[in-house]
Amino acid sequence: MNIDELDTPHLVVDLDGLEDNLDRYQTYFSKHGIGLRPHIKTHKCLAIAHMQIARGAFGITCQKLGEAEVMVNGGVDQDVLIPFNIIGEQKLRRLVALTKRTRLTVAADSETTIRGISAATSKAGVDVGVIIELDVGARAGVETPELGAELAALAHSLPGIDFRGVMAMPTPPENRPFIQQTLALLDARGLPHPIVSGGSTPASFTSHEIPELTEFRAGEYPVGGMKHLSIKTHTVAQCAARVLATVVSRPTATRAILDAGSKSMSAAIFSDGSDSGSMGHVVEFPEAHFNGASEEHGNLDVSGCDPQPQIGDRVQVIPVHPCPCFNEHDVMAAVRGDQVEAIWPVHARGMIR
Amino acid sequence: MNIDELDTPHLVVDLDGLEDNLDRYQTYFSKHGIGLRPHIKTHKCLAIAHMQIARGAFGITCQKLGEAEVMVNGGVDQDVLIPFNIIGEQKLRRLVALTKRTRLTVAADSETTIRGISAATSKAGVDVGVIIELDVGARAGVETPELGAELAALAHSLPGIDFRGVMAMPTPPENRPFIQQTLALLDARGLPHPIVSGGSTPASFTSHEIPELTEFRAGEYPVGGMKHLSIKTHTVAQCAARVLATVVSRPTATRAILDAGSKSMSAAIFSDGSDSGSMGHVVEFPEAHFNGASEEHGNLDVSGCDPQPQIGDRVQVIPVHPCPCFNEHDVMAAVRGDQVEAIWPVHARGMIR
Repeated sequence: MNIDELDTPHLVVDLDGLEDNLDRYQTYFSKHGIGLRPHIKTHKCLAIAHMQIARGAFGITCQKLGEAEVMVNGGVDQDVLIPFNIIGEQKLRRLVALTKRTRLTVAADSETTIRGISAATSKAGVDVGVIIELDVGARAGVETPELGAELAALAHSLPGIDFRGVMAMPTPPENRPFIQQTLALLDARGLPHPIVSGGSTPASFTSHEIPELTEFRAGEYPVGGMKHLSIKTHTVAQCAARVLATVVSRPTATRAILDAGSKSMSAAIFSDGSDSGSMGHVVEFPEAHFNGASEEHGNLDVSGCDPQPQIGDRVQVIPVHPCPCFNEHDVMAAVRGDQVEAIWPVHARGMIR
Repeated sequence: MNIDELDTPHLVVDLDGLEDNLDRYQTYFSKHGIGLRPHIKTHKCLAIAHMQIARGAFGITCQKLGEAEVMVNGGVDQDVLIPFNIIGEQKLRRLVALTKRTRLTVAADSETTIRGISAATSKAGVDVGVIIELDVGARAGVETPELGAELAALAHSLPGIDFRGVMAMPTPPENRPFIQQTLALLDARGLPHPIVSGGSTPASFTSHEIPELTEFRAGEYPVGGMKHLSIKTHTVAQCAARVLATVVSRPTATRAILDAGSKSMSAAIFSDGSDSGSMGHVVEFPEAHFNGASEEHGNLDVSGCDPQPQIGDRVQVIPVHPCPCFNEHDVMAAVRGDQVEAIWPVHARGMIR
């Protein structure tokens, strides 16, 4: 099938760009001896996860139990990390079940989480890996190395838990001290830490500056996005995820409307500080400014475009943030050049539980 | 099933609040002789659409062809308006097919759209209703009454098109002049306008101040949201859509983390100008400020809360904007009091084409 036969809006992934990214990030991590544990929350797709494993990733990261269940069911069952506090009876039952099917590690940042896990797994006669999340500003986690070491000691002491180390998100070099201080306290207590896990695609290529890291969680690297274009980790060709869209209206000489709004692009906005922000980069009209959207309408300021987009024109738009963008779609078209090689489900779309 | 048995995060719709809203908005429109044509892009659910029809709605609004196909397939096939320019071969084929199954009207704002529709429908031997969209600032549409009248005359003259009138979005009273001026030009040309369609839930209760309106498109009224709470069209009890969430972390004395982030709440932010904006209203902790989120983490500033939320607490969060919030979920639990009466699919979730 030719790409022109796809109805719009449609998520497409360019296979040449995707494979280029998978290769160059795996090469970097392999060279530095850091295990690559891709975060599948970006693409949510079994086909891409299997490509990552085939290239050398030793396991995966899933943000929620539901994502992990989808991946393990689909054979991506080598080694799974869920960097999230597992709380509540329903989830602990599912955690126990999943522990029997893969090597599983979960993050925790409180006594409540750790004791809840231990009670559930020890009763079921299984062990699950636990690492302590350090709060370096982005999400959850313990606030101090001392608290991290205390929780680590608790986890190590309880039945049903195999204590495995620490994680932080994100891990640019400036977050190294928190990790170092925590590891020093763990060493002082004789606590093991086979996992020291860093993360975030923008911090990937500096991860060797934190030699303590044993592994790295990167999600967006297979496809990039507007941010990656801006920081030059990805070229336009390497921004492999695009939303195919159609120009459906030209209300004025400066405005064009796409049939792709926030329900196709996601609501993410990128600003480099020079303007009010953008919701996507239009490959065919790089001067177009994607300055807003409602759910099904994308608004372009095309005053800088020569030639001008016409009603009926089909364009490819690089999203700001690939993770929520993929989550808007049930399927993606895997394309090479102008040929559609496959339609892949976004298997773990909407797996929020 | 008790609501406590639902795993989190989970979309729930309170049936008492829902039915109250359906009744009071239908009562208003019936009293003023304005046809109610609910926009189903809010709930995307056949069960709720059928409840709206049963209470007196004469038809529905769908933003995309794919939503309309889902609704017509599910028996909501009385009268369907798609306020969107239908462009391209694939969509015109589907438009022709749908025209045979329901009374269908679509909006247009260009000669390209109108000629494309006429070519497809006349070739297939069917007529589709067309109305002209007036640009009152929100999305697409013609910029002047003169252009509207010109396109109306074109649509009226072409085969395969039953010209039916005009629409605008949104229609607070200040947008009446554009509508009036366009209708005067249509009258001067002897063009019919059986449909004069207004829209948006916040403008519902002033729609009788535009006596030209024959019908009204309201989407959010069945469930409300933070904006509706702020403008007092909905009480907390009438904000019937909530995301059930669990407190999974308490990193500090002032912060609490929910397991519901932007992938459960949507990325919509509401600000009344007094603060940096909120991503939801926590019913059990109204002093909590939902000041940010990543995809799976919701960040609450709980410094104003007494008592304080504890890890493991389950809360109900009213979303900012119900339309994208429903779109994050595959299903909703329909609850009355603490009992789950049904699990309803979000049937038209993700129908972006």
